[in-house]
Amino acid sequence: MVPRLTTALSGPLLDLERRFLDNSTAIEHWLRGQWQEHTPPFYASCDLRNSGFKLAPVDTNLFPGGFNNLNPAFLPLCVHAAMAAIEKICPDARNLLLVPENHTRNTHYLQNVARLVHLLSLTGLNVRIGSLLPEITAPTPIELPNGETLLLEPLRRGPHRIGLDGFDPCAVLLNNDLSAGIPSILRGLHEQFVLPPLHAGWAIRRKSNHFAAYAEIATAFAEHIGVDPWRINPAFAVCRSVNFHERHGEECLAAQVASVLDDIREKYRQYGISESPYVVVKADAGTYGMGVMTVRDADEVIALNRRQRNKMSVVKEGLEVSEVLIQEGVPTFETVSDAVAEPVIYLIDRYVVGGFYRVHGNRGKDENLNAPGMHFEPLAFETSCSLPAPGCDPDDPPNRFYAYGVVARLAALAAAVEIERTEPQDE
Amino acid sequence: MVPRLTTALSGPLLDLERRFLDNSTAIEHWLRGQWQEHTPPFYASCDLRNSGFKLAPVDTNLFPGGFNNLNPAFLPLCVHAAMAAIEKICPDARNLLLVPENHTRNTHYLQNVARLVHLLSLTGLNVRIGSLLPEITAPTPIELPNGETLLLEPLRRGPHRIGLDGFDPCAVLLNNDLSAGIPSILRGLHEQFVLPPLHAGWAIRRKSNHFAAYAEIATAFAEHIGVDPWRINPAFAVCRSVNFHERHGEECLAAQVASVLDDIREKYRQYGISESPYVVVKADAGTYGMGVMTVRDADEVIALNRRQRNKMSVVKEGLEVSEVLIQEGVPTFETVSDAVAEPVIYLIDRYVVGGFYRVHGNRGKDENLNAPGMHFEPLAFETSCSLPAPGCDPDDPPNRFYAYGVVARLAALAAAVEIERTEPQDE
Repeated sequence: MVPRLTTALSGPLLDLERRFLDNSTAIEHWLRGQWQEHTPPFYASCDLRNSGFKLAPVDTNLFPGGFNNLNPAFLPLCVHAAMAAIEKICPDARNLLLVPENHTRNTHYLQNVARLVHLLSLTGLNVRIGSLLPEITAPTPIELPNGETLLLEPLRRGPHRIGLDGFDPCAVLLNNDLSAGIPSILRGLHEQFVLPPLHAGWAIRRKSNHFAAYAEIATAFAEHIGVDPWRINPAFAVCRSVNFHERHGEECLAAQVASVLDDIREKYRQYGISESPYVVVKADAGTYGMGVMTVRDADEVIALNRRQRNKMSVVKEGLEVSEVLIQEGVPTFETVSDAVAEPVIYLIDRYVVGGFYRVHGNRGKDENLNAPGMHFEPLAFETSCSLPAPGCDPDDPPNRFYAYGVVARLAALAAAVEIERTEPQDE
Repeated sequence: MVPRLTTALSGPLLDLERRFLDNSTAIEHWLRGQWQEHTPPFYASCDLRNSGFKLAPVDTNLFPGGFNNLNPAFLPLCVHAAMAAIEKICPDARNLLLVPENHTRNTHYLQNVARLVHLLSLTGLNVRIGSLLPEITAPTPIELPNGETLLLEPLRRGPHRIGLDGFDPCAVLLNNDLSAGIPSILRGLHEQFVLPPLHAGWAIRRKSNHFAAYAEIATAFAEHIGVDPWRINPAFAVCRSVNFHERHGEECLAAQVASVLDDIREKYRQYGISESPYVVVKADAGTYGMGVMTVRDADEVIALNRRQRNKMSVVKEGLEVSEVLIQEGVPTFETVSDAVAEPVIYLIDRYVVGGFYRVHGNRGKDENLNAPGMHFEPLAFETSCSLPAPGCDPDDPPNRFYAYGVVARLAALAAAVEIERTEPQDE
């Protein structure tokens, strides 16, 4: 079940979307059963691509940073979902510590933090913000463009607990993806819940683990509703010791690119798809759309120039890239005002709570849109039509959007399985 | 946490509403703790009256019949809340049997049933409708004004289970308030969940038990946030053997009316309220606004004429009234287009999922609005302002509405306690 959102598409529902709608009862029942077995991540956002013939997640973020882009009309959904999540974790909780990214000037991001504080407060928690920044040595107010103020406070560590001066939280919610590694101040907390767990941060997490879990889930799900799993599952491969600077591992990369392109070509032939196959090469760990490259031929990764090699070799926090994911490219055929758009779906616990379009006027339909200069277009809500229903037109936006919510939930389920499987033995 | 609704009020928030807003974190935490102790009703609707100096529930319905009056934009809230409720009861459920009221021509009510079927289906349940009507001996389609069709099917009873032909449900959801008594076909089901339980129906339920539980909860809550419990708690008394036809019990009635009026007068004096005190006399069991009377002086109940006595003596299904509730009248100072209005808040599980105004152009602010000829005005949603927040104006409609959601949840909590306490020993 998803909120009603306007999509960038019009025209009749595609066969895949129609299949999801027709099977919505079976789908919801299947998902309910899965959530009995697997604990959903506290929150997540999922980047989707919809090519008409394929609807697939291309990235699942466990530290979502765009809650401020959600339509405020959906905040009650966020709050109800967060209530459900909190009740499972520490029902008696009064205090929650939020640990954000180390930004003090990125007002877009800080508005996300403010929105998180707001919605978590509405669940009945005292929420305060503990900063990992060494320069935050005393409570530091940060003014936001809308007139609100965020108070960043220095973290205080005891033998087994973390908190702030005069603030002992039951749970620590990370909105910092730990790209810079796991800070020692967060290690060895045995009496507090850390959400998501430390190994969900990019210091340890690998996209390939996520998409391996997703492939299994997508296959089981697709069989359940009678579609080819390829319709929702992007093919991928991994190279584990690449050094772009020193041009090590290019052969592995070229071979894997060729192999994934072959797989795509085979499927395009099977379904009579005339698009040109491509893959997206990206760091297996990391975020922010750095270290991402669109490739249409294996030879391209051999002949990278210095600028391309530099771009691919580091991601956020200067982390060196050595493990690389080669992922099937899913072209997007959605546009907002003539610009290419990809939907980003937000989840809290097992609930879809909203979403927005990531829009980039200067990029092609086969390019990564999560990049500097990208323009966000929040998804508008439909308020005049009813929810997915037999009585509605098949190209009704809410009907169209149902499929997005389903695929995003499959990705969240994959994240749940991935987190279970990658849990360190000594944690 | 409540959806954002437009209220009929404008102007600065009243002191009570301000107090709720300022204490929202403490309130949500308190409620979360209460829901750990008490299982909320599957669903409920709560009629509120807001007099400015007092905001109180005057009726809590455990078989809500107006889901079709909720703004469709809030359906995702309903679905998420119903998912949470279903997971607690029978997480593996595939089939749910809905037992509606015995109406086949009341299209307003049937649209409520259709809305319930729709939202429950979206949680991943197969939902079918079993009718208690003896004339439904085969599956009977009923056309609705919007072109949809409801299929009423005859109930089939086994030794321990109830169902339909070819349909064995895990749970039975009653949308029939059992005013006509508990049908034998619903008794002695030991292997299925019946929601709400049979003793929540008007065959057994008494408003006085509800308001006794509410008084305790309101007192504990009001102490927690530092307000006089009277601000949210309507005084009441009961007469247990009244016969309006034979004019028995008039003395009890007059004495109790006088006593409640005295209590109100005392409080009005304390707070300098210039309104004229009144009580509402109504059947202790039953619904639909029959058997309801506004009284300003104890003498009025002695001198009832034949027409008034007839009106008071029966409620729905011809049930004879012998137990009577005398409830403090709370005048409403809300209006919609110059007509008197009272908010009706809908809940599923512990979540507020929407509401609408009950509006009656021909009635006074001290009269019962749930009466024949009443005109419903669904509450419109605000989509342009953010949720309750320190940064919002104090007379922001969502801020105003927060208090309604809190009081409605207190009433739902009272219903939970009431149902626990009145559970038959042999059930």
